[in-house]
Amino acid sequence: MSESELPVIEMRPYRWGDPAKEARLPDAVAGALTALGAVPAPAPVPPEDATLPGSTLPAGARTALEAAVGTAHVSVDPLVRVAHTRGWSTPDLLRLRAGDAADAPDAVVFPGTAAEVAAVLGICAARHIAVVPFAGGTSVVGGLVAQRRGFAAVIALDVRRLDRLVALDEVSRTATLQAGMRGTAAEALLNGRGYTLGHFPQSYEGAAVGGYAAARSAGQASAGYGRFDEMVVALTLVTPAGTVRLGTAPRSAAGPDLRELVLGSEGAFGVVTDVTVRIRPRPQERIYDGWRFPDFATGAAALRRLAQDGPLPTVLRLSDEAETAVNLADPGSAGTSPPAAGGCLAIAGYEGTGEDVRSRRARAGEVLAAGGGEDIGTDPGERWRAGRYSAPYLRDPLLDAGALVETLETATFWSNLEPLKAAVTAALTDSLTSAGTPALVLCHLSHVYETGASLYFTVACAQAGDPLAQWAAAKAAASSAIRGTGGTITHHHGVGTDHRAIYHQEIGDLAVEALRAVKRTFDPEGICNPGVLI
Amino acid sequence: MSESELPVIEMRPYRWGDPAKEARLPDAVAGALTALGAVPAPAPVPPEDATLPGSTLPAGARTALEAAVGTAHVSVDPLVRVAHTRGWSTPDLLRLRAGDAADAPDAVVFPGTAAEVAAVLGICAARHIAVVPFAGGTSVVGGLVAQRRGFAAVIALDVRRLDRLVALDEVSRTATLQAGMRGTAAEALLNGRGYTLGHFPQSYEGAAVGGYAAARSAGQASAGYGRFDEMVVALTLVTPAGTVRLGTAPRSAAGPDLRELVLGSEGAFGVVTDVTVRIRPRPQERIYDGWRFPDFATGAAALRRLAQDGPLPTVLRLSDEAETAVNLADPGSAGTSPPAAGGCLAIAGYEGTGEDVRSRRARAGEVLAAGGGEDIGTDPGERWRAGRYSAPYLRDPLLDAGALVETLETATFWSNLEPLKAAVTAALTDSLTSAGTPALVLCHLSHVYETGASLYFTVACAQAGDPLAQWAAAKAAASSAIRGTGGTITHHHGVGTDHRAIYHQEIGDLAVEALRAVKRTFDPEGICNPGVLI
Repeated sequence: MSESELPVIEMRPYRWGDPAKEARLPDAVAGALTALGAVPAPAPVPPEDATLPGSTLPAGARTALEAAVGTAHVSVDPLVRVAHTRGWSTPDLLRLRAGDAADAPDAVVFPGTAAEVAAVLGICAARHIAVVPFAGGTSVVGGLVAQRRGFAAVIALDVRRLDRLVALDEVSRTATLQAGMRGTAAEALLNGRGYTLGHFPQSYEGAAVGGYAAARSAGQASAGYGRFDEMVVALTLVTPAGTVRLGTAPRSAAGPDLRELVLGSEGAFGVVTDVTVRIRPRPQERIYDGWRFPDFATGAAALRRLAQDGPLPTVLRLSDEAETAVNLADPGSAGTSPPAAGGCLAIAGYEGTGEDVRSRRARAGEVLAAGGGEDIGTDPGERWRAGRYSAPYLRDPLLDAGALVETLETATFWSNLEPLKAAVTAALTDSLTSAGTPALVLCHLSHVYETGASLYFTVACAQAGDPLAQWAAAKAAASSAIRGTGGTITHHHGVGTDHRAIYHQEIGDLAVEALRAVKRTFDPEGICNPGVLI
Repeated sequence: MSESELPVIEMRPYRWGDPAKEARLPDAVAGALTALGAVPAPAPVPPEDATLPGSTLPAGARTALEAAVGTAHVSVDPLVRVAHTRGWSTPDLLRLRAGDAADAPDAVVFPGTAAEVAAVLGICAARHIAVVPFAGGTSVVGGLVAQRRGFAAVIALDVRRLDRLVALDEVSRTATLQAGMRGTAAEALLNGRGYTLGHFPQSYEGAAVGGYAAARSAGQASAGYGRFDEMVVALTLVTPAGTVRLGTAPRSAAGPDLRELVLGSEGAFGVVTDVTVRIRPRPQERIYDGWRFPDFATGAAALRRLAQDGPLPTVLRLSDEAETAVNLADPGSAGTSPPAAGGCLAIAGYEGTGEDVRSRRARAGEVLAAGGGEDIGTDPGERWRAGRYSAPYLRDPLLDAGALVETLETATFWSNLEPLKAAVTAALTDSLTSAGTPALVLCHLSHVYETGASLYFTVACAQAGDPLAQWAAAKAAASSAIRGTGGTITHHHGVGTDHRAIYHQEIGDLAVEALRAVKRTFDPEGICNPGVLI
């Protein structure tokens, strides 16, 4: 489909990640699932047998789109449509595993330039066709759910052909990347020139630059390299009403920072076609340490010291007691080899020049030790690094085995961290237990800032008869707890359709109205990712 | 007028800063001015003799405002009105020195709570009265110019009574400050609790928190403490349509970062009534070093090394050859004692714990020396620190002596820094020379980022017969050069009325439309600081 050959994985529909990396469930986990009451689930319906509606794309629209981007770059092939149906959340997978591709777009369009993106938006605006921007397709919050109501049709606008490194400014240390470039491809290209982007989200093997920007992705090395939104210094947004190019300087006092209005806009204002990001020299050395803390509060306080007074490691995270016991840091031995003495496992990783790594590691180690941490050496750290993208692969065999597994995340200021963690844990536990499916609720502190941190929760239990309803209830309870405790509904997953209602509570009606006003300006027909964000 | 007693300076109308700190012009400077053709200007018209229109505030509006905030907190006193006329730019001063207070607001209202701010906005929206939010009153870009056309009257909404430290969260290291708190007062309060805000703009002696936020202020120690917009984690915006409270976490993926939409909005969307900012421990040690570089390009490259690879000093700046020769770093001896060997003076200041200061200073010193810098000891650094707020005081005696003095600033990415500097210098020099008033154009690199830096220009020449027109032409030439070279029209002064047209070119028509749509949502009657920003 694409004219360019990229070193990217062709993602399987509705399984996580790289097909070559399928995970097997450790025996101990299988046993634990049986104890939780899980019964093996029916085999997934293969993509070619999924049920999807016939394409409603009008013939005239198809002709116009083919004229705009080339006949080869418009597809109504059912398998292509299924591959662009929803994202990587557990509810998304559950629907697809059951053969339900009702949300499939009517067509998938692959523009090759920003001008072609503009042309596609123009055609769709004129014909009232909804457009779902699609970069890596890895949303876990319903960011790719086609809202069909009121529209003649829905298309996925797949930006994978926008896959070039447009510019590399080695003096300013910036790179301009097109939106369809996979994170892996960007990193490989930059590595070849001696640089790194340093953005390694859990979805790294699938996600692409446009999605990073649209959904405010944060990677596992955000302590050292920053969040993706912090890396962006300029961007181009193509909207039905025209094109906006933002970013004339690293920082400016020229009014509101409109880059920050586009970042996180999730395709609701148009399509981000390229971003200019800061880059860093490729690290010469990497060392990842494991630390054990007696409990989560002690560990969090030590991490806070580093976040507030430095020095910051490149990667910094802390698993709570439950997560440490399950040992998600080492999926290959999950459940089999918990750290002997229990407690909470922290990972502190350092990347940079040799001197920088040695200096930061020594000083951070002093802070962690003074904060009650026990240095347990590089083995746990390096195991975590080796397995950093592996944990989500367990979800597929877990779903096969009849388990329900999902994650959610939030962030807050430091003084509110413990109450937030307690409230979300209780909400998830209570909701699932009261539904007759006792749950394992694991948590780690995933990203730190001077004034606060994020919490990442993993939940596992047996699937109930209707696992979608089962998770919807648990998720609603967790979201309500987050809102009630004053956290943000999402630290790095995004809003999508899943968080939209509670997001509106978070920012308030008047701010939502302001976003709607912006949307009307950029997208008068309301065709851009309708139902997502606003 | 205020119920609370603040340790703030009562600013003189139309002279810079603290009345106790009046500057005298060094003889050498006076001589240089004579050489440039400056002829002593007429004595300024005293404020009490300024010409201002009678207040057009309707009696009914005054009654309603008095009911909302108390009779003592609504003033139509001509001196109070003059003291709220325009800001601290040279054109503002030139108008007022000539006795022209035509832009005076019809009344000044001093609400004491956010609820009173909302009430004032409601009264003014209903009666079509324009509202100019007024915090420190130090705008140098026309941010306080009342746009009268089409409105029944114009009021200044002075937030100085909103002067409390609302909350101090020592765990999260945040402080919630009301908008009317002067920077000096905030710093004193926080110092008393062991913290610092670390925000020291040139207008420090007058500016207040609300203005910092509304205009995206950046302080002289931004390398270490960040810009003000980078410090803000939450804020409250009171608009005619309601109140918006933003900021549930340090960072979030919950949609666009709407804090960044309010920061820099310059009162056009409503009134910022409080901000929550990150704070830092009060530094235990401070050391400021001077460094000499053979030329600006060499110095800029060395500063870029620090900005990109670290370690960053707390203060980092580099004067060009012309500014170094004039020695603005030491206003007391300006023009009399240039560093013996010429070149370019850099200041590298370090604040923090003793160990942090020693470590950063040693490592940064190595980078500066490797980059061609000569360590010229702490004398120039400490002189700069002692005189950091003094330079602008020279403007008053310079204006008295018939000189025209003004500043402007911009920012860009590193690879564009030299072209931008050259273009702006040439534009200013050419414009003023062709008008028959050869100019001294000085520049320093004032703030650094990984991907770029800001440039701050100071211009001096003899006043022409119409100094307002003279400066307007020079400023237009500089702005055009900035736009033509791709820099931002302002790095930390703001947009105001002075930069509005070129700002719109910078972000483009469609982005301006989006801002207008936001304004219509928050301010349907268009009463909030009309003519500023949009």
